Amino acid sequence: MSIAHLNQKAPEDYAYPAAIAALQSLFGERVLTSNAIREQFGKDESFHPSKWPHAVIKVHTSEEVQQIVRICAEHKTPIIPHGAGTSLEGNIAALKGGVTIDTSEMNNIVAIHNEDFDVVVQPGVTRRQLNEYLRDTGMFFPIDPGANASIGGMASTRASGTNAVRYGTMRENVLSVEAVLADGSIIRTANRAVKSAAGYDLTRLLVGSEGTLAMITEITLKVYPIPEAISAAVCTFESIEDAVNSVIQIIQYGIPIARVELLDSLTMKSINLYSKTDYAESPTLFLEFHGSEAGVQEQSELTEEITSENGGSNFSWTSNTEERNKMWRARHDVAYAGKLLHPKGEIWSTDVCVPISRLADCIGETRKDIEESGLLAPLVGHVGDGNFHLLLLVDHENESEVAAAEALHRRMVIRALEMDGTCTGEHGIGYGKIEFLEIEHGAAVTPMKMIKKTLDPDNLFNPGKIFGIL
Amino acid sequence: MSIAHLNQKAPEDYAYPAAIAALQSLFGERVLTSNAIREQFGKDESFHPSKWPHAVIKVHTSEEVQQIVRICAEHKTPIIPHGAGTSLEGNIAALKGGVTIDTSEMNNIVAIHNEDFDVVVQPGVTRRQLNEYLRDTGMFFPIDPGANASIGGMASTRASGTNAVRYGTMRENVLSVEAVLADGSIIRTANRAVKSAAGYDLTRLLVGSEGTLAMITEITLKVYPIPEAISAAVCTFESIEDAVNSVIQIIQYGIPIARVELLDSLTMKSINLYSKTDYAESPTLFLEFHGSEAGVQEQSELTEEITSENGGSNFSWTSNTEERNKMWRARHDVAYAGKLLHPKGEIWSTDVCVPISRLADCIGETRKDIEESGLLAPLVGHVGDGNFHLLLLVDHENESEVAAAEALHRRMVIRALEMDGTCTGEHGIGYGKIEFLEIEHGAAVTPMKMIKKTLDPDNLFNPGKIFGIL
Repeated sequence: MSIAHLNQKAPEDYAYPAAIAALQSLFGERVLTSNAIREQFGKDESFHPSKWPHAVIKVHTSEEVQQIVRICAEHKTPIIPHGAGTSLEGNIAALKGGVTIDTSEMNNIVAIHNEDFDVVVQPGVTRRQLNEYLRDTGMFFPIDPGANASIGGMASTRASGTNAVRYGTMRENVLSVEAVLADGSIIRTANRAVKSAAGYDLTRLLVGSEGTLAMITEITLKVYPIPEAISAAVCTFESIEDAVNSVIQIIQYGIPIARVELLDSLTMKSINLYSKTDYAESPTLFLEFHGSEAGVQEQSELTEEITSENGGSNFSWTSNTEERNKMWRARHDVAYAGKLLHPKGEIWSTDVCVPISRLADCIGETRKDIEESGLLAPLVGHVGDGNFHLLLLVDHENESEVAAAEALHRRMVIRALEMDGTCTGEHGIGYGKIEFLEIEHGAAVTPMKMIKKTLDPDNLFNPGKIFGIL
Repeated sequence: MSIAHLNQKAPEDYAYPAAIAALQSLFGERVLTSNAIREQFGKDESFHPSKWPHAVIKVHTSEEVQQIVRICAEHKTPIIPHGAGTSLEGNIAALKGGVTIDTSEMNNIVAIHNEDFDVVVQPGVTRRQLNEYLRDTGMFFPIDPGANASIGGMASTRASGTNAVRYGTMRENVLSVEAVLADGSIIRTANRAVKSAAGYDLTRLLVGSEGTLAMITEITLKVYPIPEAISAAVCTFESIEDAVNSVIQIIQYGIPIARVELLDSLTMKSINLYSKTDYAESPTLFLEFHGSEAGVQEQSELTEEITSENGGSNFSWTSNTEERNKMWRARHDVAYAGKLLHPKGEIWSTDVCVPISRLADCIGETRKDIEESGLLAPLVGHVGDGNFHLLLLVDHENESEVAAAEALHRRMVIRALEMDGTCTGEHGIGYGKIEFLEIEHGAAVTPMKMIKKTLDPDNLFNPGKIFGIL
């Protein structure tokens, strides 16, 4: 998807005066239509420019969502579900305008079931909010994309993050959702049993559907006991290959590692600049172990053995909470840190995921390609899953830089697909990766489109996303 | 679903001479139409009587499946995918006749990716066949319904078994499937990356769809390193409540237990009769721990502490492989053992699953109900998941026994649903639990039916199952 053809506003071709009027008669001044609001809600954290909705409504209940959906359905007006706006492929852009339903104030924690290790939340609850709320219960919710995303948004993009190697992604951790369908009906996809063989798995169908099939209004999540012991470690390597090979061996040995993140030299440099740290500016692994005191000790020792055999040095580990938090904060701030490397650069964040046996090749070839391109592009990854990110630093005024970045990006994605990988491990398709969805899934895109067509025949929900059907 | 209204053969109303002739012209004598074969393939291991298909074809390749689907589509003839025939809700019965596609000879292991911990198999591969094949690689496939089911069948019913508490169900362990759709197209639902955010999760949609949406022709599965250490334990209790409370505490403590099975007194009695063992005939837990030597030791000790606090006695543990295998064989033979308790009894095996906080109540009330009913019904369960089975021993000639069993069964399922549980944790709906699917899912059944209708508009695949649409 070329950046060039995107324009700033919702196309003038679209207008929904009847829907807006009907919404205003019901919601009054809560129907927000100022340009500042429209611009803000048309833009996520990606490089994609803002595509404005015609109106934004901040909802509080499932019934309000239902009312909006019914009005929009009657007037064939697009509905764009909105969480924290931290998506990375333009997933919340209003490609043909319409009404953005903002869930940021629909953020109650509805229920905590301590004995069952699950919680029920409204979609606007953010992951940090949830973990702060949970802290006193001895439980935590592990899925952590870098940003403070909303649970509804994370469910919609099938998000994951640094803990996925141990705890899975949103696919594994959403037990059930409540959602409003295009016909205005409210469904609940499952009950709270941890497993079921009753009927089609609508939970997993909605998780990752990026708001194109329904609007999620409540989510039941698995949570976990805070481990008895947590320790973290940093280890540096002379080459990326050595670091990646260590990870492969850690996984293959069956060490139940909780986090294992790769950061290349450029990333470490940006971290030192941004977070005022003094890490070695070499390929680095950030690791974390969860378990009993003895278990964590055993995991760290085995891991250190593996990293040493692969030339890793300065393996330093800590169970100090403050040091650990500082390290993971630095990791999560990588997207912001990268900007310091290129004064005019905006960050184009992208990700792919491959089988772990191909990870060293995929990263190696990509690094080589970056060097040849002359671009600045820190590489970081949830490498235990075979998933890595490139932060392309691009001056959007510089046409040759944009063209070089587009070409590099395309080569990286095609390379991952040729290695039996996926065009996105955790960001989703949005409207930035539509062409790659087709290449990746081939004939399987047809049944996906059939499902979209039957559940949302008027293409109300988040039109243009995933399949490019406007 | 009353047993009484079922009859033995495919209704005379249905006949597919044109489809059969077209198949014969392509497959010759491989189109099997003898009554003995038809009867055999119309019956699974449930109490549901045989419903005969008109023909059975044993396939070997995806292309053969495609040819059959195209012919059946042309002549609007039902297609019933068939694995090992070990399902428990009539899932493979030919309710309106048609063509059964038997995959028992489509049982090649296509690829093993040691470094990625995945294998690619044809659908007829059975779980024991796979594990025998894997043994020398140091890996294993954990999902183990009692019977030696086929992987295709297990994917279709979203099966699980004793290891699910640690390793998940087929939902978590199928990475990808290849399938033939009603239009004859062959799709692959995903690549081999362990996670992806690219498009709708068709893998999870087909897993658990019981052959009603497509015919699965290849499955990519996660496999696991055989743990460094495995130990098993048996512990007896004075009451079921004490056993269940132990399990709840084990889970809540975060002990990564690999298996934890509850067997009631009657089950233990049947095991002693069938397996010539001398277990105490009291409520019992069978447990298994996986990990490092030290980890397994730690898990066993913590578990013993918890069981003792709950009045458990005779906690005996072993790392002897032979003893362990004998114990799990006895557990898996429970369905056959039960028959010895009732000379004229056939087994009606059913299961429900509830949030673990409700498990003690659900089992307690069910036990009381069994006692009041006068029926014999051993209760066993994958209790770490909140899942348990009742083996109703019923003489089908005895009308009052059948009526009592139906009433008891219904009360158990409704009880589980009222506790926010599911009408089946791992057997599927088949045609035995259709009414409960509706009660459980309510409005969510509508989008399920819409998906069925759009992907299979002529209702070719396994008609009558899950929704009762013939």
